[in-house]
Amino acid sequence: MLDTVSVAEYMTQVGREARAASRALVAASTGVKNEALQAMARELDAARDTLATENAKDLDAGRENGLDAALLDRLALKPATIDGMIEGLRQVAALPDPCGEITDMSYRPSGIQVGKMRVPLGVVGIIYESRPNVTIDAASLCLKSGNAAILRGGSEAIHSNRAIAECIARGLRAAGLPEACVQVVQTTDRAAVGALITMPEFVDVIVPRGGKGLIERISREASVPVIKHLDGICHVYIDAKADLDKAFAIALNAKTHRYGVCNAMETLLVDAAVAEAILPRLADAYRAEGVELRGCEKTRALVTANAASDEDWATEYLAPVLSIKIVESLEEAMDHIARYSSQHTESIVTEDYSRGRRFITEVDSSSVMINASTRFADGFEYGLGAEIGISTDKIHARGPVGLEGLTSQKWIVFGDGQIRH
Amino acid sequence: MLDTVSVAEYMTQVGREARAASRALVAASTGVKNEALQAMARELDAARDTLATENAKDLDAGRENGLDAALLDRLALKPATIDGMIEGLRQVAALPDPCGEITDMSYRPSGIQVGKMRVPLGVVGIIYESRPNVTIDAASLCLKSGNAAILRGGSEAIHSNRAIAECIARGLRAAGLPEACVQVVQTTDRAAVGALITMPEFVDVIVPRGGKGLIERISREASVPVIKHLDGICHVYIDAKADLDKAFAIALNAKTHRYGVCNAMETLLVDAAVAEAILPRLADAYRAEGVELRGCEKTRALVTANAASDEDWATEYLAPVLSIKIVESLEEAMDHIARYSSQHTESIVTEDYSRGRRFITEVDSSSVMINASTRFADGFEYGLGAEIGISTDKIHARGPVGLEGLTSQKWIVFGDGQIRH
Repeated sequence: MLDTVSVAEYMTQVGREARAASRALVAASTGVKNEALQAMARELDAARDTLATENAKDLDAGRENGLDAALLDRLALKPATIDGMIEGLRQVAALPDPCGEITDMSYRPSGIQVGKMRVPLGVVGIIYESRPNVTIDAASLCLKSGNAAILRGGSEAIHSNRAIAECIARGLRAAGLPEACVQVVQTTDRAAVGALITMPEFVDVIVPRGGKGLIERISREASVPVIKHLDGICHVYIDAKADLDKAFAIALNAKTHRYGVCNAMETLLVDAAVAEAILPRLADAYRAEGVELRGCEKTRALVTANAASDEDWATEYLAPVLSIKIVESLEEAMDHIARYSSQHTESIVTEDYSRGRRFITEVDSSSVMINASTRFADGFEYGLGAEIGISTDKIHARGPVGLEGLTSQKWIVFGDGQIRH
Repeated sequence: MLDTVSVAEYMTQVGREARAASRALVAASTGVKNEALQAMARELDAARDTLATENAKDLDAGRENGLDAALLDRLALKPATIDGMIEGLRQVAALPDPCGEITDMSYRPSGIQVGKMRVPLGVVGIIYESRPNVTIDAASLCLKSGNAAILRGGSEAIHSNRAIAECIARGLRAAGLPEACVQVVQTTDRAAVGALITMPEFVDVIVPRGGKGLIERISREASVPVIKHLDGICHVYIDAKADLDKAFAIALNAKTHRYGVCNAMETLLVDAAVAEAILPRLADAYRAEGVELRGCEKTRALVTANAASDEDWATEYLAPVLSIKIVESLEEAMDHIARYSSQHTESIVTEDYSRGRRFITEVDSSSVMINASTRFADGFEYGLGAEIGISTDKIHARGPVGLEGLTSQKWIVFGDGQIRH
């Protein structure tokens, strides 16, 4: 392992090479980028034996270090995982290239023609945990969007990631692109992360993928913009004018379709006018799914539930637990959301035009829905074709982030010799 | 003056009220916002005497504290300055409202309809120096874009700013909006700035307007995103295939139209193939305007110029000084720009289709031009109708920032009861 000075020097070198490679990528055609993605897919397919051998080293070390079954499962590169990586590369190759798109060109009174061109951000740093397939996922999205990538995976996956990096490098070479377009950090020293997030001269944005602890630490320490979300405290509000069959289906789906995901509902708000009609029926369904209910006092007068504390309203359970609150009005529902939501996704169930319109306009979350399950807040469901993460920030990317979220727009001006008077 | 604890408490109160007011603004119609802007214009017009009295206090104090003539001039609220503020409010009222715009709605295979709605950022903090008219300018842009504003002007202008704040408050009241939609920080304590830039729970973005020192300090210390540019090291590149009359006009205009502005050219790059034909003619014209030339060796073989040091290429003169470098190719010009540009604005003068296309695609600056003066990089020239600043960052806003730069987009989903399978 390198010492700290060497890690800093190594990361500076990685950053400098990424910056240089990013200039080559801006000039690379869509065809060349797609060729690289297809070549990487072929290289992965040809390297299945090597990948298995290298992955076994990580799995052995993981077992020795006492990693739990879930972590070992995420670490494993099964044949199906490799199939998925290959398929992912081909899907990203098939997506439209966001770069170079020119929009809004118009003539100004001075005679200049002004508009915008979509361009890569430059260099993207991705920090993730044990899943080695993220290496391919992140590499492909960065490459397609014209960004050089610096990938820092979990140290448990270092052998797998190095083997995948070899395939990526061969794919880049096959397309005539610099290998530094995608660099996998070769040291497992934690100082490498600290360096990566504090090199604004070489890195334009950081995308952390992993647990809340990792993301909080990176956000706090980074001197580079971070595309991230910390929490998904999502709400469904069943309005007084809801279609109760839709309400039942949505409230059940939003909680029970999957528990450990950021777009699962954590709090159900129910208008007092329909609470009696919908809550007992819903409570039975939740109980059948094994969901623990925690309710406000009014809720507990209608259904069996533990008492919800103030902390419950602010908690992302990521588990079969649901907090329920009965509210007197749309305003009370929106006040509750404004106070406790993590600004990820909220949905109203209503047949009332004006209330739906107010909810959509006034609720300040990255996704706001009418009569749909919060589980739809997802890059693939939204048609982005890919997703590098979900952002609950308002600056730059918001909500599911696809290829476009890894780009920016510059102004372009076409003139005929115009000068300013 | 408040002590530090009180300043922190006061700023927390300001932040909390701004956050609450921002929710009222999201719900406010375009008509109500415009009514407030028109009412502010009337209030300013009616308060000319008070404004003169309060401004005189600032000017007297400024003279006592030895402010120089330029600073006193910026501090002065002359009748024409007030006319300009009133006219500015009316112009912003006439601009289209960026909020609520819905775009890209499309149906997905699941049956949900997905698109984006443009929404305010929330609360904008603006930190500026002595010009009191910025108070109106910033207030009007924030209000129109649906953002609550916290304005911190220079302490030299505190009496003027408080008087302007009174007019703003009366205008907001007249339109039925909370006064906290626009708050002028009432203390001149510097700790207020430190508090303002470290309250992410209350402030969504900071826009500093002022000298490089102020902006650097704020960027370093802020825990909130900052929309900013530090330098304008802009280049004009005269290509081998340039129309030399256009080149002459653009190179002269980009340097001499105004010196103290961020979009003035600081370095002229000339292709060796046309250097002899254009440089002596340009040098004469610059000399007639009193511009000091600093050139590379090849330049100095053709025209009288001081020797340019490496530092010159990295300097924003904001003065009648120009550095000139002769390059052998488009590539050398783009390499020089990649190394020294502040990514503000670069222009190529050429009649060559492919070289123009490469320059536009590969140069990574907020504005990239063909055959136009860099002086056009400006919100008004680009048709934004207003400008709150120019950003040389790539994240969020880039280049001239108008009303749209003070907004974000959220995802909206219209369903009919869809759940995820």
